[in-house]
Amino acid sequence: MIRVLALIVAAAAIVASQESMFQPRFEAGDKLIRPQGYREWMFVGSNLNMGYTDGSTPKESRFHNIYIQPEAYREYAATGKFPDKTVLVMEQIAAGTNASINKRGQFEDRPIGIEVALKDEKRFAGKWAYFNFIGSNGAALAEAKPFPKEACWNCHNQHAAVDNVFVQFYPVLREAKPKL
Amino acid sequence: MIRVLALIVAAAAIVASQESMFQPRFEAGDKLIRPQGYREWMFVGSNLNMGYTDGSTPKESRFHNIYIQPEAYREYAATGKFPDKTVLVMEQIAAGTNASINKRGQFEDRPIGIEVALKDEKRFAGKWAYFNFIGSNGAALAEAKPFPKEACWNCHNQHAAVDNVFVQFYPVLREAKPKL
Repeated sequence: MIRVLALIVAAAAIVASQESMFQPRFEAGDKLIRPQGYREWMFVGSNLNMGYTDGSTPKESRFHNIYIQPEAYREYAATGKFPDKTVLVMEQIAAGTNASINKRGQFEDRPIGIEVALKDEKRFAGKWAYFNFIGSNGAALAEAKPFPKEACWNCHNQHAAVDNVFVQFYPVLREAKPKL
Repeated sequence: MIRVLALIVAAAAIVASQESMFQPRFEAGDKLIRPQGYREWMFVGSNLNMGYTDGSTPKESRFHNIYIQPEAYREYAATGKFPDKTVLVMEQIAAGTNASINKRGQFEDRPIGIEVALKDEKRFAGKWAYFNFIGSNGAALAEAKPFPKEACWNCHNQHAAVDNVFVQFYPVLREAKPKL
């Protein structure tokens, strides 16, 4: 009886401590529903006004904060591979300066919205797809269609350090990369 | 018997799911041991070259990423108060540009080290204390003494939006602030 009890307690503890990784949800085919709760995921890096083309600075200075599900991070750190259903959320935040006691530099002022990279091996021929949830009027979109391949996928596939992910720009992922 | 079993299982589940908030540890009085694992905490905001005095831009461009224990965040979001033993970690990361396919803007390149704000109501007369774990040679310090009050505390106490914390610069905390 004691052994049965111990087994039940152990099983309950495992179930209770098992975190369930955020799963992407879809509507009307491949329309991704905007992920929620990502600010409680793992942050992997920020950048400011980053761009891949020459040319002038953007009109509005913006930070990009990048998040990943903690479970996807841990699998990457252990195996060097991003699991199926990995979601990377990029939150855009307009930069502020000269507010309160701030005199120089830029801080994160006004959240604009999010873009998303999603790995779904069965759903997408190229494994990854990319989504923008910032509406043309600035309102958050409830769902978004994947971009055509030439808009994001090609560049990610060609230049990203690991499996379509720009690990080279995210210190947390760079340092977590296992030496296999 | 079934009821006893159910109670035991429920209790085990509660214990297993109860996260324990990171607790600061000290050595030789008030020397704080460098916190570990903060990259898995909650990220609340980033800034670049932020400063509180007029004057020239720093020699090296640096991001500051700020983290808080998830449990402290949740208590703040629920009550508007930072609990005792709240730890805010500020990680400094040297900015990079023009690497890989990046042409403009700045990304997070080289981690430098961390500074820490800690709320400990019994230990510190002013409730909060501030620590720097970046050694003069750039190496991470294993432990650090609190700064004298005039170095950080005065300014945080005078200008921070909530209880010595610069909530005004961190969008995640700003939006989580409850309307009480």
